[in-house]
Amino acid sequence: MNQIQLSTAKKTEFIDITTKVERIVETSRVTNGLCVIFSPHTSAGLTINENADPSVRKDIINQLDKIAPRGANYVHLEGNADAHIKASLLGSSLNVIIKDNSLVLGTWQGIYFCEFDGPRQRKVYVNIIGDR
Amino acid sequence: MNQIQLSTAKKTEFIDITTKVERIVETSRVTNGLCVIFSPHTSAGLTINENADPSVRKDIINQLDKIAPRGANYVHLEGNADAHIKASLLGSSLNVIIKDNSLVLGTWQGIYFCEFDGPRQRKVYVNIIGDR
Amino acid sequence: MNQIQLSTAKKTEFIDITTKVERIVETSRVTNGLCVIFSPHTSAGLTINENADPSVRKDIINQLDKIAPRGANYVHLEGNADAHIKASLLGSSLNVIIKDNSLVLGTWQGIYFCEFDGPRQRKVYVNIIGDR
Repeated sequence: MNQIQLSTAKKTEFIDITTKVERIVETSRVTNGLCVIFSPHTSAGLTINENADPSVRKDIINQLDKIAPRGANYVHLEGNADAHIKASLLGSSLNVIIKDNSLVLGTWQGIYFCEFDGPRQRKVYVNIIGDR
Repeated sequence: MNQIQLSTAKKTEFIDITTKVERIVETSRVTNGLCVIFSPHTSAGLTINENADPSVRKDIINQLDKIAPRGANYVHLEGNADAHIKASLLGSSLNVIIKDNSLVLGTWQGIYFCEFDGPRQRKVYVNIIGDR
Repeated sequence: MNQIQLSTAKKTEFIDITTKVERIVETSRVTNGLCVIFSPHTSAGLTINENADPSVRKDIINQLDKIAPRGANYVHLEGNADAHIKASLLGSSLNVIIKDNSLVLGTWQGIYFCEFDGPRQRKVYVNIIGDR
Protein backbone atom coordinates (compact mmCIF):
# COMPACT_ATOMS: atom_id res chain seq x y z
CA MET A 1 0.00 0.00 0.00
CA ASN A 2 1.27 3.46 -0.94
CA GLN A 3 0.55 6.84 0.61
CA ILE A 4 0.20 10.29 -0.89
CA GLN A 5 0.66 13.18 1.57
CA LEU A 6 -1.27 16.39 0.93
CA SER A 7 -1.42 19.83 2.55
CA THR A 8 -4.67 21.53 1.71
CA ALA A 9 -4.80 25.34 1.79
CA LYS A 10 -8.49 26.20 1.87
CA LYS A 11 -11.76 25.13 3.51
CA THR A 12 -12.88 23.59 0.19
CA GLU A 13 -10.46 22.62 -2.56
CA PHE A 14 -10.08 19.92 -5.21
CA ILE A 15 -6.44 18.81 -5.63
CA ASP A 16 -5.34 16.93 -8.76
CA ILE A 17 -3.51 13.77 -7.67
CA THR A 18 -3.49 12.04 -11.08
CA THR A 19 0.28 12.33 -11.67
CA LYS A 20 1.08 11.06 -8.17
CA VAL A 21 -1.21 8.04 -8.60
CA GLU A 22 0.23 7.37 -12.07
CA ARG A 23 3.76 7.29 -10.60
CA ILE A 24 2.68 4.73 -8.00
CA VAL A 25 1.27 2.54 -10.78
CA GLU A 26 4.54 2.80 -12.75
CA THR A 27 6.63 1.91 -9.70
CA SER A 28 4.42 -1.12 -8.99
CA ARG A 29 5.29 -2.60 -12.42
CA VAL A 30 1.79 -4.10 -12.51
CA THR A 31 0.84 -4.48 -16.18
CA ASN A 32 -2.87 -5.16 -15.98
CA GLY A 33 -5.11 -4.82 -12.98
CA LEU A 34 -6.83 -2.37 -10.70
CA CYS A 35 -5.77 0.78 -8.90
CA VAL A 36 -7.76 1.45 -5.73
CA ILE A 37 -7.57 4.97 -4.29
CA PHE A 38 -8.89 5.53 -0.74
CA SER A 39 -9.36 8.58 1.48
CA PRO A 40 -9.13 7.76 5.21
CA HIS A 41 -10.91 11.00 6.14
CA THR A 42 -14.59 11.66 6.95
CA SER A 43 -14.68 15.32 5.88
CA ALA A 44 -12.98 14.87 2.49
CA GLY A 45 -13.77 12.75 -0.55
CA LEU A 46 -12.47 11.67 -3.94
CA THR A 47 -13.83 12.20 -7.43
CA ILE A 48 -12.88 11.83 -11.09
CA ASN A 49 -13.86 14.78 -13.26
CA GLU A 50 -12.67 17.28 -15.88
CA ASN A 51 -8.98 18.19 -15.81
CA ALA A 52 -9.10 20.95 -18.45
CA ASP A 53 -11.35 23.86 -17.46
CA PRO A 54 -10.96 24.58 -13.69
CA SER A 55 -14.42 26.19 -13.71
CA VAL A 56 -15.93 22.68 -13.69
CA ARG A 57 -14.42 22.05 -10.24
CA LYS A 58 -15.75 25.44 -9.08
CA ASP A 59 -19.24 24.51 -10.27
CA ILE A 60 -19.11 21.14 -8.48
CA ILE A 61 -17.90 22.84 -5.27
CA ASN A 62 -20.55 25.60 -5.52
CA GLN A 63 -23.37 23.15 -6.19
CA LEU A 64 -22.32 20.89 -3.32
CA ASP A 65 -22.50 24.03 -1.14
CA LYS A 66 -26.11 24.47 -2.24
CA ILE A 67 -26.89 20.80 -1.52
CA ALA A 68 -25.24 20.92 1.94
CA PRO A 69 -24.72 24.58 2.91
CA ARG A 70 -22.03 25.58 5.40
CA GLY A 71 -23.48 26.80 8.66
CA ALA A 72 -26.97 25.37 8.09
CA ASN A 73 -28.88 24.08 11.09
CA TYR A 74 -27.00 20.80 11.68
CA VAL A 75 -27.03 18.57 14.78
CA HIS A 76 -23.25 17.93 14.73
CA LEU A 77 -21.63 20.72 16.77
CA GLU A 78 -18.13 20.87 15.29
CA GLY A 79 -19.23 23.19 12.48
CA ASN A 80 -18.22 20.80 9.70
CA ALA A 81 -21.37 18.70 9.18
CA ASP A 82 -21.53 19.98 5.59
CA ALA A 83 -18.09 18.46 4.97
CA HIS A 84 -19.19 15.03 6.24
CA ILE A 85 -22.29 15.11 4.02
CA LYS A 86 -20.26 16.09 0.94
CA ALA A 87 -17.74 13.32 1.70
CA SER A 88 -20.52 10.72 1.67
CA LEU A 89 -22.05 12.13 -1.54
CA LEU A 90 -18.76 11.85 -3.48
CA GLY A 91 -17.47 8.77 -1.66
CA SER A 92 -14.15 7.80 -0.14
CA SER A 93 -12.80 5.39 -2.76
CA LEU A 94 -12.17 5.23 -6.50
CA ASN A 95 -11.35 2.42 -8.91
CA VAL A 96 -9.24 2.94 -12.00
CA ILE A 97 -8.37 0.10 -14.37
CA ILE A 98 -4.64 -0.45 -15.13
CA LYS A 99 -3.58 -1.47 -18.65
CA ASP A 100 -0.01 -1.64 -19.95
CA ASN A 101 1.26 -0.37 -16.57
CA SER A 102 -0.79 2.82 -16.92
CA LEU A 103 -4.09 4.23 -15.56
CA VAL A 104 -6.92 3.96 -18.08
CA LEU A 105 -8.55 7.39 -17.86
CA GLY A 106 -10.60 9.32 -20.39
CA THR A 107 -8.97 12.25 -22.20
CA TRP A 108 -10.56 14.82 -19.93
CA GLN A 109 -10.47 12.87 -16.67
CA GLY A 110 -8.34 13.77 -13.67
CA ILE A 111 -8.35 12.21 -10.19
CA TYR A 112 -9.17 14.74 -7.45
CA PHE A 113 -8.82 14.77 -3.69
CA CYS A 114 -11.78 16.82 -2.47
CA GLU A 115 -11.07 18.79 0.69
CA PHE A 116 -14.25 19.98 2.42
CA ASP A 117 -12.87 20.97 5.84
CA GLY A 118 -9.38 22.34 5.33
CA PRO A 119 -6.79 23.57 5.60
CA ARG A 120 -5.41 20.27 6.90
CA GLN A 121 -2.70 17.67 6.49
CA ARG A 122 -4.31 14.82 4.54
CA LYS A 123 -3.33 11.50 3.03
CA VAL A 124 -4.58 9.18 0.32
CA TYR A 125 -3.93 5.43 0.20
CA VAL A 126 -3.28 3.72 -3.13
CA ASN A 127 -3.33 -0.05 -3.61
CA ILE A 128 -2.38 -1.81 -6.84
CA ILE A 129 -3.87 -5.21 -7.61
CA GLY A 130 -2.74 -7.30 -10.59
CA ASP A 131 0.07 -9.20 -12.26
CA ARG A 132 3.59 -7.91 -12.85
CA MET B 1 -18.22 -14.57 -0.99
CA ASN B 2 -19.53 -13.83 2.49
CA GLN B 3 -22.91 -12.51 3.63
CA ILE B 4 -23.93 -10.25 6.48
CA GLN B 5 -27.62 -10.46 7.51
CA LEU B 6 -29.28 -7.34 8.87
CA SER B 7 -32.70 -6.53 10.33
CA THR B 8 -33.38 -2.82 10.05
CA ALA B 9 -35.83 -1.22 12.51
CA LYS B 10 -36.73 2.13 10.97
CA LYS B 11 -37.61 3.71 7.62
CA THR B 12 -34.16 5.37 7.55
CA GLU B 13 -31.21 4.13 9.57
CA PHE B 14 -27.43 3.81 9.26
CA ILE B 15 -26.11 0.55 10.75
CA ASP B 16 -22.42 0.17 11.62
CA ILE B 17 -21.13 -3.04 9.99
CA THR B 18 -17.40 -2.36 10.49
CA THR B 19 -16.82 -5.10 13.07
CA LYS B 20 -18.69 -7.68 10.98
CA VAL B 21 -16.65 -6.84 7.88
CA GLU B 22 -13.42 -6.87 9.89
CA ARG B 23 -14.22 -10.39 11.12
CA ILE B 24 -14.72 -11.60 7.55
CA VAL B 25 -11.32 -10.17 6.62
CA GLU B 26 -9.67 -11.97 9.57
CA THR B 27 -11.32 -15.28 8.69
CA SER B 28 -10.17 -14.96 5.07
CA ARG B 29 -6.51 -14.88 6.18
CA VAL B 30 -5.79 -12.55 3.25
CA THR B 31 -2.79 -10.43 4.26
CA ASN B 32 -2.81 -7.72 1.60
CA GLY B 33 -5.56 -6.97 -0.88
CA LEU B 34 -8.98 -5.51 -1.28
CA CYS B 35 -12.27 -5.86 0.57
CA VAL B 36 -15.33 -5.25 -1.62
CA ILE B 37 -18.62 -4.60 0.15
CA PHE B 38 -21.82 -4.73 -1.91
CA SER B 39 -25.50 -4.03 -1.19
CA PRO B 40 -27.86 -6.06 -3.41
CA HIS B 41 -30.76 -3.68 -2.67
CA THR B 42 -32.09 -0.73 -4.68
CA SER B 43 -33.56 1.23 -1.77
CA ALA B 44 -30.51 1.04 0.52
CA GLY B 45 -26.88 2.06 0.10
CA LEU B 46 -23.47 1.97 1.73
CA THR B 47 -21.19 4.72 2.99
CA ILE B 48 -18.06 5.27 5.04
CA ASN B 49 -18.28 8.15 7.51
CA GLU B 50 -17.71 9.23 11.12
CA ASN B 51 -18.03 6.54 13.81
CA ALA B 52 -17.71 8.80 16.85
CA ASP B 53 -20.49 11.41 17.07
CA PRO B 54 -23.81 9.84 15.96
CA SER B 55 -25.11 13.33 15.10
CA VAL B 56 -23.06 13.15 11.88
CA ARG B 57 -25.23 10.27 10.65
CA LYS B 58 -28.34 12.24 11.62
CA ASP B 59 -27.14 15.22 9.61
CA ILE B 60 -26.41 13.04 6.55
CA ILE B 61 -29.86 11.42 6.83
CA ASN B 62 -31.61 14.80 7.31
CA GLN B 63 -29.79 16.43 4.42
CA LEU B 64 -30.52 13.48 2.10
CA ASP B 65 -34.19 14.01 3.05
CA LYS B 66 -33.90 17.59 1.83
CA ILE B 67 -32.23 16.46 -1.42
CA ALA B 68 -34.85 13.76 -2.06
CA PRO B 69 -37.85 14.39 0.21
CA ARG B 70 -40.19 11.57 1.22
CA GLY B 71 -43.61 11.93 -0.37
CA ALA B 72 -42.56 14.44 -3.01
CA ASN B 73 -44.24 14.29 -6.39
CA TYR B 74 -42.51 11.19 -7.82
CA VAL B 75 -43.50 9.06 -10.82
CA HIS B 76 -42.76 5.73 -9.10
CA LEU B 77 -45.94 4.67 -7.31
CA GLU B 78 -44.61 2.45 -4.51
CA GLY B 79 -43.97 5.43 -2.22
CA ASN B 80 -40.23 4.78 -1.90
CA ALA B 81 -38.79 6.74 -4.84
CA ASP B 82 -36.81 8.85 -2.36
CA ALA B 83 -35.10 5.68 -1.13
CA HIS B 84 -34.03 4.68 -4.67
CA ILE B 85 -32.61 8.17 -5.30
CA LYS B 86 -30.66 8.15 -2.02
CA ALA B 87 -29.32 4.66 -2.82
CA SER B 88 -27.90 5.93 -6.13
CA LEU B 89 -26.42 9.04 -4.50
CA LEU B 90 -24.47 7.03 -1.92
CA GLY B 91 -23.82 4.01 -4.13
CA SER B 92 -24.15 0.27 -3.64
CA SER B 93 -20.50 -0.74 -3.24
CA LEU B 94 -17.44 0.19 -1.20
CA ASN B 95 -13.76 -0.62 -1.47
CA VAL B 96 -11.50 -0.88 1.54
CA ILE B 97 -7.81 -1.77 1.28
CA ILE B 98 -6.56 -4.73 3.35
CA LYS B 99 -3.11 -4.57 4.97
CA ASP B 100 -1.69 -7.07 7.51
CA ASN B 101 -5.02 -8.96 7.43
CA SER B 102 -6.91 -5.86 8.60
CA LEU B 103 -9.11 -3.16 7.02
CA VAL B 104 -7.22 0.10 6.46
CA LEU B 105 -9.68 2.72 7.75
CA GLY B 106 -9.08 6.21 9.10
CA THR B 107 -9.36 6.76 12.87
CA TRP B 108 -12.88 8.19 12.61
CA GLN B 109 -14.17 5.99 9.79
CA GLY B 110 -16.90 3.39 10.15
CA ILE B 111 -18.62 1.33 7.42
CA TYR B 112 -22.38 1.91 7.34
CA PHE B 113 -25.30 0.09 5.74
CA CYS B 114 -27.78 2.86 4.87
CA GLU B 115 -31.41 1.76 5.10
CA PHE B 116 -33.75 4.14 3.27
CA ASP B 117 -36.91 2.01 3.07
CA GLY B 118 -37.08 -0.08 6.23
CA PRO B 119 -37.85 -1.83 8.35
CA ARG B 120 -36.70 -4.84 6.29
CA GLN B 121 -34.52 -7.92 6.25
CA ARG B 122 -31.36 -6.94 4.37
CA LYS B 123 -28.03 -8.46 3.41
CA VAL B 124 -24.58 -7.25 2.45
CA TYR B 125 -22.09 -9.22 0.36
CA VAL B 126 -18.39 -9.08 1.18
CA ASN B 127 -15.66 -10.35 -1.13
CA ILE B 128 -11.98 -10.52 -0.23
CA ILE B 129 -9.38 -10.35 -3.00
CA GLY B 130 -5.67 -10.87 -2.37
CA ASP B 131 -2.95 -13.27 -1.26
CA ARG B 132 -2.97 -15.38 1.91
CA MET C 1 -9.86 -4.94 -20.56
CA ASN C 2 -13.13 -4.98 -22.49
CA GLN C 3 -15.12 -2.16 -24.04
CA ILE C 4 -18.83 -1.57 -24.47
CA GLN C 5 -19.78 0.94 -27.17
CA LEU C 6 -22.93 3.01 -26.67
CA SER C 7 -24.84 5.56 -28.74
CA THR C 8 -27.00 7.71 -26.51
CA ALA C 9 -30.10 9.36 -27.99
CA LYS C 10 -31.07 12.07 -25.49
CA LYS C 11 -29.52 14.78 -23.32
CA THR C 12 -30.23 12.63 -20.24
CA GLU C 13 -30.78 8.89 -20.38
CA PHE C 14 -30.03 5.78 -18.30
CA ILE C 15 -29.05 2.78 -20.49
CA ASP C 16 -29.19 -0.75 -19.07
CA ILE C 17 -25.82 -2.43 -19.74
CA THR C 18 -26.33 -5.42 -17.40
CA THR C 19 -26.58 -8.04 -20.16
CA LYS C 20 -23.49 -6.69 -21.94
CA VAL C 21 -21.45 -6.77 -18.74
CA GLU C 22 -22.72 -10.26 -17.91
CA ARG C 23 -21.54 -11.50 -21.33
CA ILE C 24 -18.05 -10.11 -20.70
CA VAL C 25 -17.95 -11.97 -17.37
CA GLU C 26 -19.00 -15.23 -19.08
CA THR C 27 -16.37 -14.83 -21.81
CA SER C 28 -13.65 -14.19 -19.20
CA ARG C 29 -14.31 -17.61 -17.63
CA VAL C 30 -13.41 -16.11 -14.25
CA THR C 31 -15.26 -18.13 -11.60
CA ASN C 32 -14.89 -15.95 -8.52
CA GLY C 33 -13.66 -12.39 -8.37
CA LEU C 34 -14.53 -8.82 -9.12
CA CYS C 35 -16.01 -7.01 -12.11
CA VAL C 36 -14.94 -3.36 -12.35
CA ILE C 37 -17.00 -1.12 -14.62
CA PHE C 38 -15.57 2.32 -15.52
CA SER C 39 -16.88 5.31 -17.47
CA PRO C 40 -14.07 7.35 -19.10
CA HIS C 41 -16.37 10.37 -19.48
CA THR C 42 -16.76 13.47 -17.28
CA SER C 43 -20.38 14.27 -18.19
CA ALA C 44 -21.77 10.75 -17.72
CA GLY C 45 -21.81 8.36 -14.78
CA LEU C 46 -22.73 4.85 -13.70
CA THR C 47 -25.24 3.54 -11.17
CA ILE C 48 -26.93 0.36 -10.02
CA ASN C 49 -30.66 0.69 -9.39
CA GLU C 50 -34.09 -0.80 -10.08
CA ASN C 51 -34.50 -2.72 -13.36
CA ALA C 52 -38.26 -3.32 -13.12
CA ASP C 53 -40.29 -0.10 -13.04
CA PRO C 54 -38.73 2.47 -15.44
CA SER C 55 -40.35 5.27 -13.41
CA VAL C 56 -37.57 4.84 -10.82
CA ARG C 57 -34.98 5.97 -13.40
CA LYS C 58 -37.21 8.92 -14.30
CA ASP C 59 -37.41 9.92 -10.64
CA ILE C 60 -33.63 9.71 -10.23
CA ILE C 61 -33.12 11.79 -13.39
CA ASN C 62 -35.75 14.37 -12.34
CA GLN C 63 -34.36 14.71 -8.82
CA LEU C 64 -30.78 15.08 -10.11
CA ASP C 65 -32.15 17.90 -12.29
CA LYS C 66 -33.42 19.60 -9.14
CA ILE C 67 -30.06 19.10 -7.39
CA ALA C 68 -28.08 20.43 -10.37
CA PRO C 69 -30.48 22.22 -12.74
CA ARG C 70 -29.67 22.62 -16.44
CA GLY C 71 -28.97 26.21 -17.37
CA ALA C 72 -28.40 27.43 -13.81
CA ASN C 73 -25.82 30.14 -13.25
CA TYR C 74 -22.64 28.05 -13.65
CA VAL C 75 -19.06 29.27 -14.19
CA HIS C 76 -18.25 26.62 -16.84
CA LEU C 77 -19.25 28.08 -20.21
CA GLU C 78 -19.92 24.95 -22.29
CA GLY C 79 -23.51 24.66 -21.02
CA ASN C 80 -23.03 21.21 -19.51
CA ALA C 81 -21.86 22.01 -15.97
CA ASP C 82 -24.94 20.22 -14.62
CA ALA C 83 -23.76 17.04 -16.38
CA HIS C 84 -20.31 17.22 -14.75
CA ILE C 85 -21.89 17.70 -11.30
CA LYS C 86 -24.26 14.76 -11.81
CA ALA C 87 -21.35 12.59 -13.00
CA SER C 88 -19.46 13.26 -9.76
CA LEU C 89 -22.55 12.62 -7.61
CA LEU C 90 -23.13 9.16 -9.12
CA GLY C 91 -19.47 8.34 -9.74
CA SER C 92 -17.55 6.90 -12.66
CA SER C 93 -16.94 3.34 -11.47
CA LEU C 94 -18.85 0.37 -10.10
CA ASN C 95 -17.84 -2.88 -8.43
CA VAL C 96 -19.83 -6.05 -8.79
CA ILE C 97 -18.76 -9.34 -7.18
CA ILE C 98 -18.43 -12.40 -9.48
CA LYS C 99 -19.50 -15.82 -8.20
CA ASP C 100 -19.78 -19.01 -10.28
CA ASN C 101 -18.83 -17.01 -13.40
CA SER C 102 -21.81 -14.69 -12.95
CA LEU C 103 -22.46 -11.17 -11.61
CA VAL C 104 -23.91 -11.19 -8.09
CA LEU C 105 -26.74 -8.67 -8.32
CA GLY C 106 -29.92 -8.29 -6.30
CA THR C 107 -33.20 -9.39 -7.88
CA TRP C 108 -34.19 -5.83 -8.78
CA GLN C 109 -30.74 -4.47 -9.64
CA GLY C 110 -29.61 -3.42 -13.10
CA ILE C 111 -26.36 -1.71 -14.14
CA TYR C 112 -26.96 1.64 -15.83
CA PHE C 113 -24.82 3.97 -17.92
CA CYS C 114 -26.08 7.46 -17.04
CA GLU C 115 -25.85 9.92 -19.93
CA PHE C 116 -26.12 13.53 -18.77
CA ASP C 117 -24.89 15.36 -21.88
CA GLY C 118 -26.03 13.40 -24.93
CA PRO C 119 -26.66 12.46 -27.54
CA ARG C 120 -23.09 11.17 -27.91
CA GLN C 121 -20.96 8.17 -28.74
CA ARG C 122 -19.84 6.72 -25.40
CA LYS C 123 -17.89 3.76 -24.10
CA VAL C 124 -17.62 1.80 -20.87
CA TYR C 125 -14.56 -0.20 -19.79
CA VAL C 126 -14.98 -3.52 -18.01
CA ASN C 127 -12.17 -5.31 -16.22
CA ILE C 128 -12.46 -8.77 -14.69
CA ILE C 129 -10.21 -9.71 -11.78
CA GLY C 130 -10.05 -13.24 -10.34
CA ASP C 131 -9.22 -16.87 -10.96
CA ARG C 132 -10.34 -19.00 -13.92
